[in-house]
Amino acid sequence: MDITLKQIATIHTDFGEKFGVPRQSGIVPELEGTIVFEPEFRNHDVVRGIEGFSHLWLIWGFSENVRDGWSATVRPPRLGGNERRGVFATRSPFRPNPIGLSVVRLDSVTYEGEAASPVLHVLGADMMDGTPIYDIKPYIAYSDALAEANSGFAASPPESRLQVVYDHAPAGLAPAKLAALTGVLSQDPRPAYQNDPDRVYGIRFAGCDIHFKVIDNVLHVIE
Amino acid sequence: MDITLKQIATIHTDFGEKFGVPRQSGIVPELEGTIVFEPEFRNHDVVRGIEGFSHLWLIWGFSENVRDGWSATVRPPRLGGNERRGVFATRSPFRPNPIGLSVVRLDSVTYEGEAASPVLHVLGADMMDGTPIYDIKPYIAYSDALAEANSGFAASPPESRLQVVYDHAPAGLAPAKLAALTGVLSQDPRPAYQNDPDRVYGIRFAGCDIHFKVIDNVLHVIE
Repeated sequence: MDITLKQIATIHTDFGEKFGVPRQSGIVPELEGTIVFEPEFRNHDVVRGIEGFSHLWLIWGFSENVRDGWSATVRPPRLGGNERRGVFATRSPFRPNPIGLSVVRLDSVTYEGEAASPVLHVLGADMMDGTPIYDIKPYIAYSDALAEANSGFAASPPESRLQVVYDHAPAGLAPAKLAALTGVLSQDPRPAYQNDPDRVYGIRFAGCDIHFKVIDNVLHVIE
Repeated sequence: MDITLKQIATIHTDFGEKFGVPRQSGIVPELEGTIVFEPEFRNHDVVRGIEGFSHLWLIWGFSENVRDGWSATVRPPRLGGNERRGVFATRSPFRPNPIGLSVVRLDSVTYEGEAASPVLHVLGADMMDGTPIYDIKPYIAYSDALAEANSGFAASPPESRLQVVYDHAPAGLAPAKLAALTGVLSQDPRPAYQNDPDRVYGIRFAGCDIHFKVIDNVLHVIE
């Protein structure tokens, strides 16, 4: 029994491209996201009482540009990119149905326009700007928070591996955006096991083009 | 951007009908479920390494019989069935896209037939027999387990409200099934605020027709 999901909302984030997006939600808690509903759902009723919840589940769609089909096994970045795991034993985008699952912190709700259309302001999302949202559900701690769960190869969060030094401060980034950018860069967005101190990487964040090098575990933002 | 999800698997549970199904996963941890993949995915590769995870997320489809469309506001049973909340502030089935989200404990994996087709044996599912599954993802504690989350009107699990007494022991139920049935009945499957000691309720569980009455907070299984 196949089903068709309609897009209910869009999330806007500071990531115009895949490079730099954290691999799970919550890893960089400073990241700001804004969820805007589709016209059919622009009604304050649909979120009535949502402010009572500190966190929300988002069910969202992977971009076809990123995922390019599915495979039975994938190579999780956490295992260095060499070991294979079954796709249903990972959160990889290369899955049969291109849907992602992320929990975000609900920071605030604003209501816009004559219809009082709700806009959800969230923190910690691991999604590209413009990602379609198919469902929003409240996080219910008594059923969802399983602190004792054994999480296999992803038992601990990825460490902040790099010290970030701004040799050149990005112009025009508000302090909150700069804090989020630092969090993103400290996670080391480079592909696994690349370590060329002369290589310049580029990341587009919050409308700024950021360039950096990594030398001896220190990430230098250079222009 | 709408998307079509294909069914990847089916879960088999002891609930032939909606009546009695717990309102969240994990409330009755003894409940046994079996996940069988669709032919396209009957390959041991798709779950390689899944035994390393103690819990799995299931993304599944609500039966159209149960949900009958969606509404902007719904009346959560936890609020007594009288107060309204926005659909995205609840886990109600009456949502724009008929998908549910549940975490289950992975008990074991068996491999069947020449293709070594994997079957996942899980515990605690809150789903009807035959529910279609659209995705299976490992539970990752560092991102998913938020013990400090504030969960609004669902801050605490529903209490086991009823003592269960077997005036008539159901014939042919294995001890594990009887323990699960007791868990289901102790949750009080009656609709909110029904309290008629003469009324006989029926529930079909694990192929048995169970009949019960509730008198002074004691549930009597009567035949």
